[in-house]
Amino acid sequence: MNNIFETPKIKELIPKIKQFLKKHLYELETPENLNGLFSKIEPLLLEKRELVKKEGLFGLHLSEEEGGKGLSLCEFGQISEVLAYSPFGHFVFNTQAPDIGNTELLHKYASKELKHKYLKPLQEGKIRSCFSMTEPEFAGSNPVMMGTTAIKDGSDYIINGHKWFTSSADGAAFAVVMAVTNPEAAPHQRASQIIVPLDTPGYEFIRNIPIMGHAGDGWASHAEVKYNNVRVPQTNLVGEEGSGFKLAQERLGPGRIHHCMRFIGIAQRSFDLMCHYALKRKITDDKTLGHQQFIHGFIAESKAEIDSTRLLVLNTAKNIDEFGASACRDEISAIKFHTANMMLRVVDRAIQVHGGLGMTNDVVLSYWYAHERASRIYDGADEVHKSALAKNILKNFNPVSL
Amino acid sequence: MNNIFETPKIKELIPKIKQFLKKHLYELETPENLNGLFSKIEPLLLEKRELVKKEGLFGLHLSEEEGGKGLSLCEFGQISEVLAYSPFGHFVFNTQAPDIGNTELLHKYASKELKHKYLKPLQEGKIRSCFSMTEPEFAGSNPVMMGTTAIKDGSDYIINGHKWFTSSADGAAFAVVMAVTNPEAAPHQRASQIIVPLDTPGYEFIRNIPIMGHAGDGWASHAEVKYNNVRVPQTNLVGEEGSGFKLAQERLGPGRIHHCMRFIGIAQRSFDLMCHYALKRKITDDKTLGHQQFIHGFIAESKAEIDSTRLLVLNTAKNIDEFGASACRDEISAIKFHTANMMLRVVDRAIQVHGGLGMTNDVVLSYWYAHERASRIYDGADEVHKSALAKNILKNFNPVSL
Amino acid sequence: MNNIFETPKIKELIPKIKQFLKKHLYELETPENLNGLFSKIEPLLLEKRELVKKEGLFGLHLSEEEGGKGLSLCEFGQISEVLAYSPFGHFVFNTQAPDIGNTELLHKYASKELKHKYLKPLQEGKIRSCFSMTEPEFAGSNPVMMGTTAIKDGSDYIINGHKWFTSSADGAAFAVVMAVTNPEAAPHQRASQIIVPLDTPGYEFIRNIPIMGHAGDGWASHAEVKYNNVRVPQTNLVGEEGSGFKLAQERLGPGRIHHCMRFIGIAQRSFDLMCHYALKRKITDDKTLGHQQFIHGFIAESKAEIDSTRLLVLNTAKNIDEFGASACRDEISAIKFHTANMMLRVVDRAIQVHGGLGMTNDVVLSYWYAHERASRIYDGADEVHKSALAKNILKNFNPVSL
Amino acid sequence: MNNIFETPKIKELIPKIKQFLKKHLYELETPENLNGLFSKIEPLLLEKRELVKKEGLFGLHLSEEEGGKGLSLCEFGQISEVLAYSPFGHFVFNTQAPDIGNTELLHKYASKELKHKYLKPLQEGKIRSCFSMTEPEFAGSNPVMMGTTAIKDGSDYIINGHKWFTSSADGAAFAVVMAVTNPEAAPHQRASQIIVPLDTPGYEFIRNIPIMGHAGDGWASHAEVKYNNVRVPQTNLVGEEGSGFKLAQERLGPGRIHHCMRFIGIAQRSFDLMCHYALKRKITDDKTLGHQQFIHGFIAESKAEIDSTRLLVLNTAKNIDEFGASACRDEISAIKFHTANMMLRVVDRAIQVHGGLGMTNDVVLSYWYAHERASRIYDGADEVHKSALAKNILKNFNPVSL
Repeated sequence: MNNIFETPKIKELIPKIKQFLKKHLYELETPENLNGLFSKIEPLLLEKRELVKKEGLFGLHLSEEEGGKGLSLCEFGQISEVLAYSPFGHFVFNTQAPDIGNTELLHKYASKELKHKYLKPLQEGKIRSCFSMTEPEFAGSNPVMMGTTAIKDGSDYIINGHKWFTSSADGAAFAVVMAVTNPEAAPHQRASQIIVPLDTPGYEFIRNIPIMGHAGDGWASHAEVKYNNVRVPQTNLVGEEGSGFKLAQERLGPGRIHHCMRFIGIAQRSFDLMCHYALKRKITDDKTLGHQQFIHGFIAESKAEIDSTRLLVLNTAKNIDEFGASACRDEISAIKFHTANMMLRVVDRAIQVHGGLGMTNDVVLSYWYAHERASRIYDGADEVHKSALAKNILKNFNPVSL
Repeated sequence: MNNIFETPKIKELIPKIKQFLKKHLYELETPENLNGLFSKIEPLLLEKRELVKKEGLFGLHLSEEEGGKGLSLCEFGQISEVLAYSPFGHFVFNTQAPDIGNTELLHKYASKELKHKYLKPLQEGKIRSCFSMTEPEFAGSNPVMMGTTAIKDGSDYIINGHKWFTSSADGAAFAVVMAVTNPEAAPHQRASQIIVPLDTPGYEFIRNIPIMGHAGDGWASHAEVKYNNVRVPQTNLVGEEGSGFKLAQERLGPGRIHHCMRFIGIAQRSFDLMCHYALKRKITDDKTLGHQQFIHGFIAESKAEIDSTRLLVLNTAKNIDEFGASACRDEISAIKFHTANMMLRVVDRAIQVHGGLGMTNDVVLSYWYAHERASRIYDGADEVHKSALAKNILKNFNPVSL
Repeated sequence: MNNIFETPKIKELIPKIKQFLKKHLYELETPENLNGLFSKIEPLLLEKRELVKKEGLFGLHLSEEEGGKGLSLCEFGQISEVLAYSPFGHFVFNTQAPDIGNTELLHKYASKELKHKYLKPLQEGKIRSCFSMTEPEFAGSNPVMMGTTAIKDGSDYIINGHKWFTSSADGAAFAVVMAVTNPEAAPHQRASQIIVPLDTPGYEFIRNIPIMGHAGDGWASHAEVKYNNVRVPQTNLVGEEGSGFKLAQERLGPGRIHHCMRFIGIAQRSFDLMCHYALKRKITDDKTLGHQQFIHGFIAESKAEIDSTRLLVLNTAKNIDEFGASACRDEISAIKFHTANMMLRVVDRAIQVHGGLGMTNDVVLSYWYAHERASRIYDGADEVHKSALAKNILKNFNPVSL
Repeated sequence: MNNIFETPKIKELIPKIKQFLKKHLYELETPENLNGLFSKIEPLLLEKRELVKKEGLFGLHLSEEEGGKGLSLCEFGQISEVLAYSPFGHFVFNTQAPDIGNTELLHKYASKELKHKYLKPLQEGKIRSCFSMTEPEFAGSNPVMMGTTAIKDGSDYIINGHKWFTSSADGAAFAVVMAVTNPEAAPHQRASQIIVPLDTPGYEFIRNIPIMGHAGDGWASHAEVKYNNVRVPQTNLVGEEGSGFKLAQERLGPGRIHHCMRFIGIAQRSFDLMCHYALKRKITDDKTLGHQQFIHGFIAESKAEIDSTRLLVLNTAKNIDEFGASACRDEISAIKFHTANMMLRVVDRAIQVHGGLGMTNDVVLSYWYAHERASRIYDGADEVHKSALAKNILKNFNPVSL
């Protein structure tokens, strides 16, 4: 089978990255590493990052002038899948969320000064960042409801608000904060995105929220934070005032592809682990789990689901490359819930095939089972996307068959 | 959104065919036509066929030297989808199963004489044919178990056997019969495919089997037949002796694409009908069904499923075009059960949206609900394909992530 | 395993009824009977009814003073299951919908005169009736929207309206018609139920609606009808004016149990057929379908689903017996969608196990597949019940765990 | 609605226990407690246990002569549900697995001496115990494959073996160990159950296996252990030699009810939390999540599934009470997979309704999502039960409808 989305760059890069995973990353999947605090494994991961640089594979998400490979979204999506085969892949290659999203945002919308101060060290992997949008008091399904405000005072903004699920805030150098700057404007034009260095007085780190029993730390954490009269210069504004939702939306297009291809990667790796274990685990002296029809069902359905979903996501990526994200709005909604649910089904089946072992951190599956459940919630819950997609289809109804 | 599988031929043909459906075929979906015997509507359909010829759209499945367009499988697949938007599309365009499969078979494997006598009138739509393989006494899941025999006698074969689900036998000019010619050979080399004109003495038409309450007739029927000492010349053999399963397998590759794209077409049309009705049906003075979240769920999930599955099937078709069917064996298994189940889910949702109306023959959905349930059974039941696919994956296990 | 809902009456009746089915009804499941018009088999069924009378099993749904057994709803529910093992069971025992519902309605709310004229012959099986509520112009999900009117004129009502899914109207002696009598009243108090003899001038039988390709006839049909200035005496009113929705609601409580236990019966019989075929159908010389794990999955899941659902429905019936239908409103909503969906899943699995045979009318499964799809739509679509149930739970929220 | 399984004891006990949960246990569901080591919260739980004793609610699983209430299995099952509303309920009431299973085992099969030494302190909550059966080298789906041996030496057994998922071994006073004592016997008569005090030389505690990222400790852990020439007196044998599988099977009957009612409890509490949050969480100024049809679907389906499954499990319990576990073998298989899957679906829906909050340890749902995934694996994976159930149904096929 040919890969219809293959390009010369992809053809060259993918085998190198796979090689790197095999040589340097899969070995990290020990119970200690999967189980422990991020701060404990971070030094090791930063060492691996140096190896990535040595191999000339650093900055794959960047344009050529920034030292990257100038990959299209459809090309980078394919790399994103491969990096996701390891739970440490994206971090080691410095393409991890939320930094990659902030990188793209600043690249497109930040002033020259902001770029120099925040974007450059981010691209070089010298600092980390976070994106501070969701608030505990308001339902994520209606982003227009937002309590955080940024009020002008002289040449500054004074920011007040309460956020959570500010992922990777722990240890980050700065946050991009969504705050209402124009309360009287139309609902979607009230908020702006503002850079807040996290050493600014008034920034309060409350806690890393325990998720599925893990508070985690460092990059691998989700913080609850407060902004108490945090003062930053108005030049820290990203894009225009009132463009917060527009930028968030725009961030979502390519971001959705990154997420979804990461989901595909997790599903594909889980599939491989499932097949591998089915072949190996004996149930009688001469039969393995791979002889069981129940397992056949798991494998066959997963194969069809992974392959079809990958095509859907890459096809969307290719169209974003050609026509821009706003022309692909429906597809971007569709891939989110479709891919997240597919991944969770495949991970679940792979766990079931592994039996008790699947529950343990001796394999990576339980890590994904617990941590990726959130994929059906963040960046728009399934239900939000389904409703938005259907409403848009109906609004612009244009039957294919007519 | 661009169609990644578009070609110049497709770009030209698809709008013409859609136009034809809109102008000439959708109007045929009356309760009487959907409900009645095929023989009653056949004359009307044959009139439409003449219009197809006039538009230069006849023989779309044929090579250029045979008067067709020389379409690749991936191109024809896309046309197959569009023709399936109408339950009468394929028949009117003379691309209906089982004739299209027999056309391909004879085109590749029949002698010059057989081609002249059987293939030509088939391509011209002057006769119909059938394929006689399944037997009531033996499980379809194990095709090697077969009771029909063809024994040599002088220069003839004498055929005895009992078949059912010989679709479209009623009114067909000839059958391609699977019969055991070499009982001592290895299991998969015992059977051959032999042409039997249906006016041969000893051929016994037992009945059109009532399916979901319809025996049907003519092309739209599934016969039970017997071959009682049916004598045909050995020159009626298609391909080599003992190659029956090989040819059946080969027939299945492109045939699977035809079927699956037909399923996609049914799903897409059902989707369009569902959206159309959701927009139209009032539930209060100022709200329609399209305001209901349950309906949103149906629409959104169907959209993602149809689009991803179409990509999977067309990608398989493209690879068959490039590398041949045997290189795509896994994909051919995967698309069968995946597409059939997807279609039935979408049809079911569309019926649910239509409420009581969906049960009636006032819309085409109930016709598909009843008749296409068989798609999960014929040409290999879901379970057979899943098991075969998983076994093959495990046998040649080659992890993508390693 | 003991049946927790068993009573002495049940213990005595069930084996007799099962015996009757085995001796007299299962033999009727021929393709001709399952496939053909009801009028063709009706004489045979009426003969069987005489046998029922001879066995003293006629009128099982009636009170003792009416010549019945005075069964509780929970008792009759169990009989309803058994009668549903045969698609002809309920008709032969004169407990078929819609007559059983009309019987109950008239028993409770009709005047002495109406009872004498309409109820008695209905109980004796001498006439049939229908219930005329659903209208093509208005969504069934909002029953308050209704176009049919009954306007007083002297001592008569003059009825005008357009109805469909007036099941079994073909050949019925009278209809119970829902019509708006009090257009100015509160929405749920506008309609009344009025008896209309079907030989009244102005009653127009339009057609038996083709459902899944079958228009059917007689009892086994669903009519579209019109009431054109149909004049009936005001004494034909059932219950009070404006009580139409109240009576319809009340009709639904026990009616829901009848329907749901009928669904259980269909599921149980399909389960038995599935197991029977799995044991019988060979896939190799020494293995049957029953050796396949996929089939194990179908059987095991069906067993758990049927048994748990039966308990849910009978428990609801028992509570209706004790506390009345309105105290069990949530449960009555829950069993409708839960049981209908369960039944359709079991029927679908049973078909899949039968392979091609399952599509044919050689077994009863395809009959149920096609005809019972409507169970998720009539008497409130799944979505209507789910929404109503959840709203009511939330409105009266009373956490079990607190 | 009446509870058909209510008894006077239940009627008296349930409200008291619910009261206890409300007053003393729900408050324990803090992120720290749900997130932390068991050893940290254990002292607090033991204090609560004293409160249980004060209320006269201690030892609910015991016979009257042992100071319990002499509850039937069906009665205790209902209590088991209620205790499971809190993740700490069973431990605080000393009815936690695996101790409750060992209690029953020793009660029925241990010698007077063993009872005095091990059973009594277990019943009094003074010690904890574990059950050591599963082995990492052999698939749990085939329990006959077992590597641990117990070889006679003088009046002792010398035990060697490697076990994992020996739940709660950390801190336990003794293990009941499954070991092969009769390697030449028929497969199911090779193993015996032997008590091993965990301070015996040669017992090696390897680790608490990290499950979903938590190694846990104390009662809330699953250990990997080794038995290296562990010497115990032959009088430590429970039951007869070779009866290991028989006793394990017998343990499973009531144990299955305990587990399944615990699952029901988790599902019911999750349902209550889901409704509670749906009512509370605003999505606009005047609408809550409870106005969304997607949420209606979650609530309605969960309601029907919980109620029907509870009836199935309690009906099985009642039949075990009357006829013994071996007469209910099919039902015991059926409830295991059916209830576990139902619970996981309900927990999943409840998480989805809670959005991001559902992922956190601020509510108990994520704790159950992660820890109860194992319910589809331990004590027989879904697939094992489905296959066993279906085989048994087919072996003794007795159609209900005939």
